[in-house]
Amino acid sequence: MAESPLILITNDDSIKSKGIASLVEAMKPLGELVVVAPDTVQSGKGHAITIHDPLRLSKSDQFPGIEAYTCSGTPVDCVKLAIYEVMKKRPTLLVSGINHGSNAGINVLYSGTMSAAVEGAIEGIPSIGFSLLDHSADADFDASMSYANKLATLVIQNDLQKGVCLNVNIPRGKEEKLNGLKICRQGRAYWEDSFDKRKDPFGGDYYWLTGEYTDTDKGEDTDLWALANNFVSVVPTQFDMTAHHFIANLNDWIL
Amino acid sequence: MAESPLILITNDDSIKSKGIASLVEAMKPLGELVVVAPDTVQSGKGHAITIHDPLRLSKSDQFPGIEAYTCSGTPVDCVKLAIYEVMKKRPTLLVSGINHGSNAGINVLYSGTMSAAVEGAIEGIPSIGFSLLDHSADADFDASMSYANKLATLVIQNDLQKGVCLNVNIPRGKEEKLNGLKICRQGRAYWEDSFDKRKDPFGGDYYWLTGEYTDTDKGEDTDLWALANNFVSVVPTQFDMTAHHFIANLNDWIL
Repeated sequence: MAESPLILITNDDSIKSKGIASLVEAMKPLGELVVVAPDTVQSGKGHAITIHDPLRLSKSDQFPGIEAYTCSGTPVDCVKLAIYEVMKKRPTLLVSGINHGSNAGINVLYSGTMSAAVEGAIEGIPSIGFSLLDHSADADFDASMSYANKLATLVIQNDLQKGVCLNVNIPRGKEEKLNGLKICRQGRAYWEDSFDKRKDPFGGDYYWLTGEYTDTDKGEDTDLWALANNFVSVVPTQFDMTAHHFIANLNDWIL
Repeated sequence: MAESPLILITNDDSIKSKGIASLVEAMKPLGELVVVAPDTVQSGKGHAITIHDPLRLSKSDQFPGIEAYTCSGTPVDCVKLAIYEVMKKRPTLLVSGINHGSNAGINVLYSGTMSAAVEGAIEGIPSIGFSLLDHSADADFDASMSYANKLATLVIQNDLQKGVCLNVNIPRGKEEKLNGLKICRQGRAYWEDSFDKRKDPFGGDYYWLTGEYTDTDKGEDTDLWALANNFVSVVPTQFDMTAHHFIANLNDWIL
């Protein structure tokens, strides 16, 4: 009989979020679990790593019967510590999330959830990031858990090409209301940023980053289109950022 | 006569680093400058943004005669604050760096310097990140300054395709010893991570992230090859992380 899969679980909303508890539940039937997750909220941390401060790692009893740790660093730090310090062998699968809020479109760059999955892909580990389009702390993760279980099972069975991970976003609502899976590309939607400028009690200015998410992409093959049409979006994601199509142009005008 | 270019300058090594001072010097002849840079070292911050803490912005007299500000956040925060709060019109060009240390290969994902340039590209602003292959605080930036000036001039003259920025890495050494520019793709080189585990004075464990950079790419068209052969590497860089080549496979096994 094949060995039981070893599944590494992380996120960016911290070990205390409902999203990671839901992901742990969804993965339980699939194999042996190890959780290494941030001890504080690490949303928006992108692919940040901690190199100017030491990292702390602590055993956690957050999930009874499951080996779990909190880390003082970012989601990418969690993945590195898990692989190189915590786990005795390399995981069969890495899952990250379930994020409270969308990581479709350009959010893949800002997202700690997805950066953890991308770090898994860099390490050659089949990896999936899951996000639910609901920011609330007590969001309903039932449909997300069902899709997380299905997709993790498929990835364990089929494996992913080395260097590819999946960015999975799930619309709100009950599973029976969703239209199923759709394989997509990353949509071209951007943040129209703005800052909320305030004064602290001592007269100093400070700013909160806010913004409007604007979909400028008319394609029907994007994650944004899929989500707007009540599909679960699945974007195969990689980490070669080269603009290959522009190499010839650059050669023309630089050399 | 055309208006003088408006150039936004940022980095990740902080406003006090020699690298950004060198970049300011290199850009002076090219237009009007505005500097918005982190007040502390933000190396390895990738595409992180600050969403759970307020941001501070302070006027700086770091560069006499030049409008400059420090920001309490990440390099990407600096770019957003510069564009949406500080600057009266959009910059003609964004330059980031000159970083103390290489941002070739996979480093593009971890690098605050390059994430600032990528953020510029997301905003549709022609953007370049510069990095010198020398981590030392007093590195010799002479050759880097010369190449920064040349490439910024070329980008102002030619413009870049929207959504593309440049990742420029410069080998150590005097300009006359370098072999010129080479347009490249991002090389497949990764960190073999390891952690240096230590005990604090109170008996607690902590970890420093360390590692070896390993080039697994045999191509002669990579930034890593170019740098090893004493060329200045120029990688056109974009932010669509979709693994387009894998969409068909995924459709086969998921649907």
